[in-house]
Amino acid sequence: MIVRKPLKLDCGKTINNFPIAYETYGSLNNKKDNAILVFHALTGDQYVTGINPVTNKDGWWSHAVGPDKSVDTNKYFIICANIIGGCMGSYGPGHQDPDTQKIFGTNFPVITINDMVNAQYNLLDHFQIKKLFSVIGGSMGGMQVLQFVSNFPDKTKTAVPIACSSSHSAQNIAFNELGRQAIAADNNWNNGEYFSKNISPDKGLAVARMAAHITYLSKKSLQEKFGRKLQKREHLKFGFDADFQIESYLRYQGSIFVDRFDANSYLYITRAMDYFDLPGQFKGNLSDAFKETKTKFFIISFTSDWLYPTQENKDIVIALNAIGADVGFVEIESDKGHDSFLLDVPDFLKALKNFLEKSYSDN
Amino acid sequence: MIVRKPLKLDCGKTINNFPIAYETYGSLNNKKDNAILVFHALTGDQYVTGINPVTNKDGWWSHAVGPDKSVDTNKYFIICANIIGGCMGSYGPGHQDPDTQKIFGTNFPVITINDMVNAQYNLLDHFQIKKLFSVIGGSMGGMQVLQFVSNFPDKTKTAVPIACSSSHSAQNIAFNELGRQAIAADNNWNNGEYFSKNISPDKGLAVARMAAHITYLSKKSLQEKFGRKLQKREHLKFGFDADFQIESYLRYQGSIFVDRFDANSYLYITRAMDYFDLPGQFKGNLSDAFKETKTKFFIISFTSDWLYPTQENKDIVIALNAIGADVGFVEIESDKGHDSFLLDVPDFLKALKNFLEKSYSDN
Repeated sequence: MIVRKPLKLDCGKTINNFPIAYETYGSLNNKKDNAILVFHALTGDQYVTGINPVTNKDGWWSHAVGPDKSVDTNKYFIICANIIGGCMGSYGPGHQDPDTQKIFGTNFPVITINDMVNAQYNLLDHFQIKKLFSVIGGSMGGMQVLQFVSNFPDKTKTAVPIACSSSHSAQNIAFNELGRQAIAADNNWNNGEYFSKNISPDKGLAVARMAAHITYLSKKSLQEKFGRKLQKREHLKFGFDADFQIESYLRYQGSIFVDRFDANSYLYITRAMDYFDLPGQFKGNLSDAFKETKTKFFIISFTSDWLYPTQENKDIVIALNAIGADVGFVEIESDKGHDSFLLDVPDFLKALKNFLEKSYSDN
Repeated sequence: MIVRKPLKLDCGKTINNFPIAYETYGSLNNKKDNAILVFHALTGDQYVTGINPVTNKDGWWSHAVGPDKSVDTNKYFIICANIIGGCMGSYGPGHQDPDTQKIFGTNFPVITINDMVNAQYNLLDHFQIKKLFSVIGGSMGGMQVLQFVSNFPDKTKTAVPIACSSSHSAQNIAFNELGRQAIAADNNWNNGEYFSKNISPDKGLAVARMAAHITYLSKKSLQEKFGRKLQKREHLKFGFDADFQIESYLRYQGSIFVDRFDANSYLYITRAMDYFDLPGQFKGNLSDAFKETKTKFFIISFTSDWLYPTQENKDIVIALNAIGADVGFVEIESDKGHDSFLLDVPDFLKALKNFLEKSYSDN
């Protein structure tokens, strides 16, 4: 859809007539009270489940979303939009600047989680939905959940922020900066102007992806899955090819990522994550972000997630409890690190399903 | 010194007449029983304490080594050599290949921790030392300590492996591979042949350093030191300059590193670390690595070290206990992550001092 209403961004600039690419799953009921807005994470997109037409692989949340799954497409109407700043159809640095007729590149305005959420709010008008049944997201998607409820306290019945934080930590900023510097170190990046030259900073983007990928997995899961296993060889080769399976795996993750992702979008989205500081929007008091809301929260963290550890998720619970908000919380036992929310982790999928079903039956 | 004796490397090649650059501190006593061989870590060098003439900054272990310090230069004779594969004078990829008269680059043989230790063993002959008082090292230096005792079970009275592991974990291989890929992604790397072109892969090497640097610090210490503090500004700039102090800090760490370190050496040394698997040298039984030794061990780990966590250090203690070896162990409470062993951590410095003094007085 093209958003006609001007949107004033946090940076001060205003954008107009910009596209938001979205997908829907399931059917909106007559009462229009079964809609769930799913927010995607850094490298996600609108193709939540089924086959992603760009990658020809399963959508990023196929474990959780589908008929009879936790987010049940037989029951709910699921909407997911590519975030602005992204590279899967929504307005981003790969679009043309209407003022210059050139690809934006780094002339695209720096966006924030708040901007992303405000842009996606237009989907409610688009579908004439007065109140969502839920907003759900993991990682950066969880940040959008928090920001959404803060901005629109009476626009969703429930909210499920998963494996996230209300404020990006120094370590997480550091890892994002590492990714940005890897992209900037690639000569092909050319200060963001690579479209016109038909080149792209694939090597730098692959390194950024490798760095991020390590942070998504736990030390234990890497050890159990890869350990020191060799890659299609019986002995060390005493060279710099990928001797170990973990090396080969990381290289592969880097190489497939560049086929589906734009380096400039990677810069913009990581920047938005780093800028996210919801308590900072309320003079340091996170509770104030939610003081208007009657939304029912369910917060989920994972034991082995060291990127968004349980404590950072609990801080949100504490802030909500402090104002007597309706909040549930569960820490799921999982060895799979931050990626747990994307994987087949039965305890997690059950907890999510139960929360939604129970809340929906109260409708 | 030039090592005249041929050294057969693990890769099968033999090196001859190769240089080892070393420094000494304190004086060797008449009985020659007060010598300590200190092994440096990945980016360390032979300049343990005092002013490093290359960087004009304090040596890397100035907190621990000096008059009346833990490793007391009034009492002990300290020797530290640049590892082979390094870039501070010992034989490495920046040296000339005697066969081709060209700089080795990636034609330098891939070396191992075992090769490093065997090369440095020549220092004992050089100083006519029959038995060292101690071998000490942190991180990759600790790996050398373990390998030294395994190779030369009667050549040191004591051994202090600090913040290390007997076998490089999948996560640590992953982070090293990330660094190597960052260097390889820099066009200036040119498959290791950059000397002849008077260029160097500084951008890639800086990214590798940033990645490693994040792993040296704990999440908590980054949060306490940097948090979300801005760098010389009151508000976010909505751009890609370093808004946050942590970004500025990482960029600085990357930029100063390239002035003192060679990218090819970074590849070789990280490879040696990844190849390190002491139990693997003994069919999986770490105890067998030490079954000959009467060396007295003191193993030190740090609570917040997530790169070489306490458990990996304890595994060494367990293997030594299994054969009734003389081993002490302490886990030091510190928020400073893996870097703790390089920093002013009083409990650590005291423990190290006490162990050495007690062992020395038994002489």
